[in-house]
Amino acid sequence: MNNFEYQNPTKILFGKDQIENISKEIPNKAKVLLLYGGGSIKKNGIYEQVTKALKGFEVVEFGGIPANPEYAVLMDALKIIKEQKITFLLAVGGGSVIDGTKFLSSAALYKGDTPWDILTENIRTTSGMPFGTVLTLPATGSEMNSGAVITREETKEKLAMGGPGLFPQFSVLDPTVIQSIPKRQLANGITDAFTHVLEQYMTYPINALLQDRISESILQTLIEVAPKVMKDPKDYKAAADFMWSCTMALNGLIQKGVPTDWAVHAIGHELTALYGIDHARTLAVIAPSHYRYNFEAKKEKLAQYAERVWNITEGSVDEKAKQAIVRTEMFFNGLGIDTKLSDYTRDYMGTAQEISRRFTVRGWNTLGEHKNLSPSDVEKIVTMAY
Amino acid sequence: MNNFEYQNPTKILFGKDQIENISKEIPNKAKVLLLYGGGSIKKNGIYEQVTKALKGFEVVEFGGIPANPEYAVLMDALKIIKEQKITFLLAVGGGSVIDGTKFLSSAALYKGDTPWDILTENIRTTSGMPFGTVLTLPATGSEMNSGAVITREETKEKLAMGGPGLFPQFSVLDPTVIQSIPKRQLANGITDAFTHVLEQYMTYPINALLQDRISESILQTLIEVAPKVMKDPKDYKAAADFMWSCTMALNGLIQKGVPTDWAVHAIGHELTALYGIDHARTLAVIAPSHYRYNFEAKKEKLAQYAERVWNITEGSVDEKAKQAIVRTEMFFNGLGIDTKLSDYTRDYMGTAQEISRRFTVRGWNTLGEHKNLSPSDVEKIVTMAY
Repeated sequence: MNNFEYQNPTKILFGKDQIENISKEIPNKAKVLLLYGGGSIKKNGIYEQVTKALKGFEVVEFGGIPANPEYAVLMDALKIIKEQKITFLLAVGGGSVIDGTKFLSSAALYKGDTPWDILTENIRTTSGMPFGTVLTLPATGSEMNSGAVITREETKEKLAMGGPGLFPQFSVLDPTVIQSIPKRQLANGITDAFTHVLEQYMTYPINALLQDRISESILQTLIEVAPKVMKDPKDYKAAADFMWSCTMALNGLIQKGVPTDWAVHAIGHELTALYGIDHARTLAVIAPSHYRYNFEAKKEKLAQYAERVWNITEGSVDEKAKQAIVRTEMFFNGLGIDTKLSDYTRDYMGTAQEISRRFTVRGWNTLGEHKNLSPSDVEKIVTMAY
Repeated sequence: MNNFEYQNPTKILFGKDQIENISKEIPNKAKVLLLYGGGSIKKNGIYEQVTKALKGFEVVEFGGIPANPEYAVLMDALKIIKEQKITFLLAVGGGSVIDGTKFLSSAALYKGDTPWDILTENIRTTSGMPFGTVLTLPATGSEMNSGAVITREETKEKLAMGGPGLFPQFSVLDPTVIQSIPKRQLANGITDAFTHVLEQYMTYPINALLQDRISESILQTLIEVAPKVMKDPKDYKAAADFMWSCTMALNGLIQKGVPTDWAVHAIGHELTALYGIDHARTLAVIAPSHYRYNFEAKKEKLAQYAERVWNITEGSVDEKAKQAIVRTEMFFNGLGIDTKLSDYTRDYMGTAQEISRRFTVRGWNTLGEHKNLSPSDVEKIVTMAY
């Protein structure tokens, strides 16, 4: 096991009717900016619950944060924060709204001229404007971590930011929100959380026995609840297990003391930037090819995953490892998620070269847990995913 | 799954040579009280590492906190805290030193006349004097939770306290400390952590799929590393897995959203108070009888534990559940831990009646996850453990 530091101060309020408790978590006399996305919260009753809970606070609203939170939109929100002297941010939404709010938390206290520098210059945020979240779509884990990914349409960029100042003060996880989520987004959420675990697990053995088993626990739980959640989003028991699994998949715990990969995300982000493919679906496209291309480096963990998660106990390490990749594709397919780029766009020729070119320009020569994947490797992985 | 709130702000510094980083975690200009136990830290090099790391801070020392931290001794330390105007506490030790330090953290800011009231009147500590820990004996999980158990020899009492103000600011978990721990204490640590998980798991199914699997993960890891740790405490890999498992067993995570029991601890504490039996050994004495006495209520989870943790896949639910209890006893026995009260004292007759009497006096009529165990049930459980 590698040395590690771990601290996660976010307070989780989990369960039915927890939204009404947010008033106890927001400082008295706070001036709150309520941030949300396309407005689905006004149809499913969450907006009503939140505004009721915020009674007594001075509240300003900012809706319209798009999926893949857009820098230009967020800059409009930042203007409101400054003009209205906002002191607390409340994100009500999925990963995009929460990530956008994290950017605003950082940008609100940023001393430099251009907040975009936070992303391009990798400035870690040690102190941001305090914020809480009400999660409406389990998937990204952003509700209990300190990272965010922001998109800039103008330059077709999608970049990450983070820092210890960007943990939410609190996050409400009410599994009943799942009832009104479209199936397509539920499938995305399951796929996203599943791949988050894989990025922190599918590397090489390092004798972190407990971290491995907890990762496998999350994968097993997602596999067990996925059909139930897809069949009946009103199944509260399944929704609760699904929601908590998504949070645990990316709250930092399972990555401590172990090597992590994240190449699937790095490549997947480009597919979203280029073609607007849903984030989770880009992961399902890239992961199988990535594991096949890096088979020798990953086969021991792939075989362990085959045995413990998929109960594949027959065959050699190589055979089990190969079967595990197939089972992973089948799992995604079973959710209605396609796993080839050509399923999403006819215009895929040249994509591998373009992504490789972008990585070269950025100097990204060290992807993967061994930090040995070059842009030319990335080109081959993407080609395998056509 | 039940509704829950979860927050754990303790910062973990895990791994070799992490002690040297404590100076970054203690506030500048703090006046530190360094608390420790019987002095083993002066023999194994930890004291030297800690004092080196504290260079530049004003430090006062208080050694001699006994196993089962004694109120009278802690009151001497409290006097020093007040006289010397201490502002930060640093516990260097196992669960007893850390628990004692938590009592002091609370008592230092307590406004009432008699700090013992914190224990007898169940006063929750919302704000205590800040403290950190350097863990020298993995077992109790106290390094990453907000609870403590304090003993008072004068009245033969052992009582619990806690509250959100009693999380350590930081805890150093350096697995190399295990090298100098006597085998008897290593066996105690494994047994203690194992039983902590059982208290939060061996209840009834509530569809908290992930919590169940994480609990099973900790049990499986402890079973896997126990022989390695006992055979060679210098095996760093095994020591690291052992240490992290003990912390994860009682940092609050696996108890969230599920029923918990804790009757084994409640009864076990009395055996320590009456006979001075090591805490962990009292748990190994009580747990099997407790599970046999409450078999009907717990058999579904016992059978799940049999299947997933012990790979007992043959037989009926009852058969698997019974076998699981036997395997648990065998596991403790394999560590050199006896599982009958008569193995520890010849003078055991009347113990069940005495413990039952104490519980009656205290009005403890609602033990166990169903809150339906009376002092008369406790009497039967203890008798079965003779």
